[in-house]
Amino acid sequence: MPRESSAEERMTAVTQAHAAFRQLRTSASDERSRWLMGIAEAVDAHRSALVAVADEETSLGAGRLNGELDRTIYQFHHFRDAIAQEKHRRAIDQPGDPDASPQPRPSLKQMRVPLGPVAVWGASNFPFAFGVLGGDTASALAAGCPVIAIEHPGHPRTSELLAEIAQGALAKFDAPRGTFALLAGRATGASLIADAQVKAGAFTGSYAGGRALFDIASTRPDPIPFFAEMGSVNPVFLTRQAVRQRGGEIAQGLVDSATLGVGQFCTKPGLVFVADGAEFVTTVQDRVANVAPAPMLTEAIAANYRQRRSEMMDNSTARATIANASGADESAGSAAVLVIDHEALKESWSVLAEECFGPLMVIVTCDSDSDLVDWAQQTPGSLTATIHACEDDAGDRAVVNRLVDELQDSVGRLIFNGWPTGVAVSAAMHHGGPHPATMNPIFTSVGAQAIDRFLKPVTMQGFPDELVPAWLAGGATSA
Amino acid sequence: MPRESSAEERMTAVTQAHAAFRQLRTSASDERSRWLMGIAEAVDAHRSALVAVADEETSLGAGRLNGELDRTIYQFHHFRDAIAQEKHRRAIDQPGDPDASPQPRPSLKQMRVPLGPVAVWGASNFPFAFGVLGGDTASALAAGCPVIAIEHPGHPRTSELLAEIAQGALAKFDAPRGTFALLAGRATGASLIADAQVKAGAFTGSYAGGRALFDIASTRPDPIPFFAEMGSVNPVFLTRQAVRQRGGEIAQGLVDSATLGVGQFCTKPGLVFVADGAEFVTTVQDRVANVAPAPMLTEAIAANYRQRRSEMMDNSTARATIANASGADESAGSAAVLVIDHEALKESWSVLAEECFGPLMVIVTCDSDSDLVDWAQQTPGSLTATIHACEDDAGDRAVVNRLVDELQDSVGRLIFNGWPTGVAVSAAMHHGGPHPATMNPIFTSVGAQAIDRFLKPVTMQGFPDELVPAWLAGGATSA
Repeated sequence: MPRESSAEERMTAVTQAHAAFRQLRTSASDERSRWLMGIAEAVDAHRSALVAVADEETSLGAGRLNGELDRTIYQFHHFRDAIAQEKHRRAIDQPGDPDASPQPRPSLKQMRVPLGPVAVWGASNFPFAFGVLGGDTASALAAGCPVIAIEHPGHPRTSELLAEIAQGALAKFDAPRGTFALLAGRATGASLIADAQVKAGAFTGSYAGGRALFDIASTRPDPIPFFAEMGSVNPVFLTRQAVRQRGGEIAQGLVDSATLGVGQFCTKPGLVFVADGAEFVTTVQDRVANVAPAPMLTEAIAANYRQRRSEMMDNSTARATIANASGADESAGSAAVLVIDHEALKESWSVLAEECFGPLMVIVTCDSDSDLVDWAQQTPGSLTATIHACEDDAGDRAVVNRLVDELQDSVGRLIFNGWPTGVAVSAAMHHGGPHPATMNPIFTSVGAQAIDRFLKPVTMQGFPDELVPAWLAGGATSA
Repeated sequence: MPRESSAEERMTAVTQAHAAFRQLRTSASDERSRWLMGIAEAVDAHRSALVAVADEETSLGAGRLNGELDRTIYQFHHFRDAIAQEKHRRAIDQPGDPDASPQPRPSLKQMRVPLGPVAVWGASNFPFAFGVLGGDTASALAAGCPVIAIEHPGHPRTSELLAEIAQGALAKFDAPRGTFALLAGRATGASLIADAQVKAGAFTGSYAGGRALFDIASTRPDPIPFFAEMGSVNPVFLTRQAVRQRGGEIAQGLVDSATLGVGQFCTKPGLVFVADGAEFVTTVQDRVANVAPAPMLTEAIAANYRQRRSEMMDNSTARATIANASGADESAGSAAVLVIDHEALKESWSVLAEECFGPLMVIVTCDSDSDLVDWAQQTPGSLTATIHACEDDAGDRAVVNRLVDELQDSVGRLIFNGWPTGVAVSAAMHHGGPHPATMNPIFTSVGAQAIDRFLKPVTMQGFPDELVPAWLAGGATSA
């Protein structure tokens, strides 16, 4: 049975977070920067213990986990940079203008302030980078919001070690008790997001889980923002020219991307539209057949994968190729590719156009590049869409333009001649997208702008400079 | 009976808005700027007809309505400026970096794109500036979102004339049919916000109305952002020193602000905390008693006001002063002030701390400035809070600092030595606030940033410059 916090533990965490917020809300970013750096250093100092326990719990392997820990540490630096000189407040200082039209304007100073305590749900598939000390926690703390994190039942010991490390670092740098707390359990999470003292939620995980929490957050007496990043099919569009010129290379890149981390990435390319791709399909099938089975995060996730894969095979006319599963145990995920003609896809759309969490991709064979554009119009909301085309071919450039016109409407990130797995932590990243990829298309969960989820504007009208608090005054630009 | 659009009218509007969006989403801001200016000019050209019909329907008077029309026209200019050189896209151009840590970074270009068709509900109390061609419509069109507006039943003829003017101007400047449509009725609105082709909603009005629509938007299969601005109690805090030095002036300013437009402003100061204010209270009571009754927007609104006023009087120990109502007809709203000691307020909090739409204010007499700070901690989410204090008094400056620390958490705009009625349309304005003032504390409905409600980011990864569409390429800044 997964751990479940007691009601008393939950209420203590909330009470302490509320008390901590009364200090955090007026804290300067320099102070919180020290906390972020303290956590980052402490995490690095416990690297070998963290990687060991996470590998035991997730089977992700030391190489991948060390890389993910680097990313996790980097995220704390990234959000430290995002609040330097209070710039996250996006302050605007607009002097009064008695001659303004259509009426005189008083002096206005606008800046952003933290929302309050934030509940964060760690993901199964990235125990570090999207876990209880992942980007959601780093960005919320950077904003000045205390965090109450809910551990994922797939890696409780990793989560508890991370929490212990963070609390030690925060105490060392004199952050208020209650700045970070860890809880566990589904019922606990449901009560937490309904608590009047919790002012926002951030979630990475399944659609069912994210939607259930969003529903509570939206129907409470005082609804609060709830940000859920829930994965997607991440469609891929391959032009006839691209496949003709670089079919082998694209096939290898696709199989690598779709099976990376045993297909357990929210950006896994899951639905591939290819024009005139008979030979390409054969190449992909051959390569998929040779992918070695690898353990998935948990046996339950592996069982879900096999069930979903069977559902897709049983309820469509797609031809399936599954990697040799001999010797694979209960926790293994065998790679698979389903191939279906685009005319037949219409009948199987609902079963095939929904995410399958695991190393499976659907290839849709189209007759022409024009079919690609037609299907791009049908794309469900996704985190990403990927286009492979020949940029030195005028016809392909025209196809790309049409695909971009369609896809910018339905996805958060467009990739040209690359692959969607791997999400750079940077100022220009957008890791989000329309429903069902997320519950709010306006915000990102990766990159500096993720902090905007936890800040609200406040405007001070007619205040003399000496009455604007020091913690609010930094970094204003004139308007 | 208020007008109700037919299902066919509604479906036609949605179908045409969806078709229009396929053109608007790739339109350059220069093109939409011409539409905005065309509407602004056409509205101005029909000024006398608009003011006449609005005065018939709302009794707001030609002076006020002409001023409001100026503001409405200005808003179109303001949002035209907000999209100049595509700057609303907040583009970031981040070149790739093969040496980036912790891993190589591909080139990333981020920009914002419109969400899709937006449903807009006009308010009762500002038939022009917050009506069907108000700030919500102007900002949505500026963003590139077609608008389907729902008229307020209090001024249908005004709304229909505005819609006719807008559609004429849009046609003249070759905007797609479906860029703007007008519908009517409560059932129509409920169906509209549930429609899969509608991608966001914006509402100004009562809590009950905003909440009902928010609930539909949040529980549909694919939830969409719904922005509601619903008014609030707008607390006022008057220090002992301020009242001692300028009590008469503050009393007059308060009564003017609370009774402006017969108290039908969402920023009306409704809950006034005063330290040591016995004489101040007498002054306010005297002035309120002499406020001439004036017609409210509709008889129904006047009846609601009288009912709410009675409820507040019957369910609290507050002493009431009501302006002489002799000769007032059914549509008149007589100004009122309720006075209660702050200890007694605790028992009547729920009935007195909720908005009363009309020319009524509650004055809470406190013993000291310290009581003001205590009550500031209890403030419900509000659009504004106002502080009057003496900036040259060290004690008052300390009180102001403590009030600001509390109030920045619960209100969207803080006013110093001024009044909350009157919301400047400007870059640094924030017209929003925590629940129950709005359904989302992160966004404003007034000022340039109102456009952010209708835009979502998209990141293009690895795209050569020549494959970034012209309509997306403008205005990028390097990161």
